[in-house]
Parts: sequence; structure tokens; C-alpha cells
Amino acid sequence: MSDTNDWLDQVTWNRDGLLPAISQDVVSGRVLMMAWMNRESLQLSVDGGYAVYWSRSRSQLWRKGETSGNRQKIEEMRLDCDGDTLLISVTQEGGIACHTGRESCFYRRLDDGNGWQSTDEVLRDPKELYGPK
Amino acid sequence: MSDTNDWLDQVTWNRDGLLPAISQDVVSGRVLMMAWMNRESLQLSVDGGYAVYWSRSRSQLWRKGETSGNRQKIEEMRLDCDGDTLLISVTQEGGIACHTGRESCFYRRLDDGNGWQSTDEVLRDPKELYGPK
Repeated sequence: MSDTNDWLDQVTWNRDGLLPAISQDVVSGRVLMMAWMNRESLQLSVDGGYAVYWSRSRSQLWRKGETSGNRQKIEEMRLDCDGDTLLISVTQEGGIACHTGRESCFYRRLDDGNGWQSTDEVLRDPKELYGPK
Repeated sequence: MSDTNDWLDQVTWNRDGLLPAISQDVVSGRVLMMAWMNRESLQLSVDGGYAVYWSRSRSQLWRKGETSGNRQKIEEMRLDCDGDTLLISVTQEGGIACHTGRESCFYRRLDDGNGWQSTDEVLRDPKELYGPK
């Protein structure tokens, strides 16, 4: 990486110091999920080559796939015109991004008159991904 | 649409009553932009079939493409597992989503050691899109 952190300073962090990060599968082109990064997790993502997010619910770093094995290898990172949203092209290990065992977190489609309908199959039982509680 | 607004109630709005909405080109698969919707703009988007966002900077409804002509015709809407992010598959009229005259707002790629580098060509001069000031 650069000797300076100019590239980190060019990000427009929100009032909580966070940046929304959209991940897209480099092969299928599907949008997999949207999560949040803080400055440290973005730096760790770039340094390590795998997506590290900031879990807002747990208030801690979230090394995506640490438990499930479904890590996201970063192929490319792009920043938008306002500098306040990140797009990551990833190789999704295991082919599953969602904690429900589906490829993508966006598995509910709006069906006029019938609300949000699940359309995508569960590829692996979440119990297998996360082990017994 | 449904007689009830159950589908709107199933959205997890953030503390500002907003929902991040990612738009993806139905043909190229490119992620075009991320913007925000409030309840009214989501309802208007579904009713009218074209993306209507909520402009946080102007605190008003933002009928995407109203000035530039680059409207986004909604082909499909998907909600994520947490219900707090929307993915819209769109036909991008004019082939330009970004106010800089580029196809996508994500036109800056992280180049190790050289920060964010513009990679995408400007398809139309923004002056043409928005007229003389």
C-alpha cells in the first residue's frame, strides 16, 4: 500500500465513522450483501485481501467467514463519486454470503400484492455453517 | 399493490427513517449507485415503476433522472435478510447513472500505492445532462 493514508482520508465516513460496503460476486455478478466498514476494517481488508467489516450490532470487527468459512476474497475495490459508498468485487468462498445459507442476502423479491417473497434456495443448512448452538 | 402496507412495514428503516437502495443495471450487471429511500419514496417507486429516492442533502424527494432524463425503470426489487437494504434491478435510461456523466458512480478503483484512480470514461458531459448553470 501507499506510504500515506491519503486513500483512507479520501473516504467520506458517516457520522458514526462508518462506510457502507456492497459486495458483488466477481463470477456471477450477483450483489451478495451490504455491510459496514470502519477505518480499521477497511485497512485490514486491504492489507489482508479478505473482507473485514464492522459489526454494528456487536460493536466489533467482523472477519467475514471466520466461523462459516465463507470468506470473501477481494478482487477489486471501488469508491463512488461522493466517496461515501464502497463496492467490492469478491470471490465468495463456499458460494454462500448469507447467514441463512443462501448465495446472496437479497433473496426476497417484491411480488406485487404479495409482499416480499423468498425466491432463492438454501444451499447449505445454517446449522452446518455455524455449528450447533 | 397490496391493499395493506405490510410490505412497507417489513422494511427495517434506520433511525432517520431511511433505507439504503442499491441499483444494478439489469443488462450489464454493473452496480450503478447507492442512494437512500424513505417510506414515501419507496412507495412512489413501486407505484410509478421508476426509482424515487430521498435526497439527504436537499431533504426532499429525488425523482432520479427528472433533470438529466436518466431515469431508472425498476425491473425488480429485492430486500435483504435483515430487511435493512434494498437492491433494485433497473433499466438505466441513457446508460448513465452518475452525475459525472459516467455509467456508474463507482468509477474509482483502488490502485495499491496510488489511491483511488478514475477508470471509467465520461459518456456525456455533465453540462449537457444538467444544462447551463
